[in-house]
Amino acid sequence: MSVVVEPVARLIEAFARLPGIGPKTAQRLTYHMLRSPEGEARALATALIAVKEDVVFCTSCFNFSIGPLCPICLDPGRDDTRLCVVEDALDVLALERTSAFRGRYHVLHGAISPIDGIGPERLRVRELLDRALDAEARGEPFAEVILATNPTLEGEATALYLAERLAGHVGAVTRIARGIPVGGDLEYADEVTLVRALQGRRSIEEASDR
Amino acid sequence: MSVVVEPVARLIEAFARLPGIGPKTAQRLTYHMLRSPEGEARALATALIAVKEDVVFCTSCFNFSIGPLCPICLDPGRDDTRLCVVEDALDVLALERTSAFRGRYHVLHGAISPIDGIGPERLRVRELLDRALDAEARGEPFAEVILATNPTLEGEATALYLAERLAGHVGAVTRIARGIPVGGDLEYADEVTLVRALQGRRSIEEASDR
Repeated sequence: MSVVVEPVARLIEAFARLPGIGPKTAQRLTYHMLRSPEGEARALATALIAVKEDVVFCTSCFNFSIGPLCPICLDPGRDDTRLCVVEDALDVLALERTSAFRGRYHVLHGAISPIDGIGPERLRVRELLDRALDAEARGEPFAEVILATNPTLEGEATALYLAERLAGHVGAVTRIARGIPVGGDLEYADEVTLVRALQGRRSIEEASDR
Repeated sequence: MSVVVEPVARLIEAFARLPGIGPKTAQRLTYHMLRSPEGEARALATALIAVKEDVVFCTSCFNFSIGPLCPICLDPGRDDTRLCVVEDALDVLALERTSAFRGRYHVLHGAISPIDGIGPERLRVRELLDRALDAEARGEPFAEVILATNPTLEGEATALYLAERLAGHVGAVTRIARGIPVGGDLEYADEVTLVRALQGRRSIEEASDR
């Protein structure tokens, strides 16, 4: 006989299914909800239903949107000549927090990973190539496509694949720098990162550009 | 202009209101929900509504329940002569995981804290004293009431207050042991804990009882 009543057990279970939430945290969250005013639980429940009912993919960049185009694609103040390709919509948020990029995005929704059976056709790769070719056909090819996939095996493979396909149809294809993270420590960096940091070295004047 | 559409922002906000969930984790959870099948979001939403609609307090021990009595109070196999008093319903779960206590519980829903304006009247103290007095009146007083409030200032104050009130109406009033946690390190223990560990020392035979 369980000491926890069924609705409580069900909420613990639902919380524990979230990524990074272990069984103890799920219990803590559930008991917090039991103690908190009904409005808080209802607000979370309503927000959960709303994202599934109202949120769709932007038809241009495939970020999350509520209309055919997302706020970034609709923003007339952004640079149409630069496109940043990322694996995940969360990566857009991370880059936006920096305010260092004012162009457009393209969200692939994953990376090529033959081991997991994920080929380019499972990602928004076709749509990216179409965007580049359309821009070229309009006589306004992208001046630069920045490949900002993760510096992992899958992200690098995806970047290489895309670079090959985009070559000749856009002004330049670039890859974000891999190296020692700011505040990091050479002593603790792995060999591959150190090699990348050396390979990516720039003259001092150039490196302190911004 | 926000780069995140409104339903997404609202879910991030709702997640971030949960204890121990920072803004970045809230984002991660929200984007997980956006990617996961609709059933997962709906299950969590339904479970949230259900706990607020169906869960009440047990009229005897004030743990969470769906009927007038909770599963532990309804369990005929438990020891009616021993009562364990805890601050929080989560403490019941923690103690139940040990399987070391087979008596009944009483959940105070907090601890006495004059600085926060929380006196005994804000807790389930009256109900605890009534339980003890009722049992005494029936000629079956509790053989032991274990005060398992936290070893914090508030928990200790609560335990002292309850011990005074219960004295004479129950067989014995005991307090859980305070000392070095198992696997802990004397070197890193604070002075108060060390003093408690010394004060609570027992003869070797007794201490290795179980």
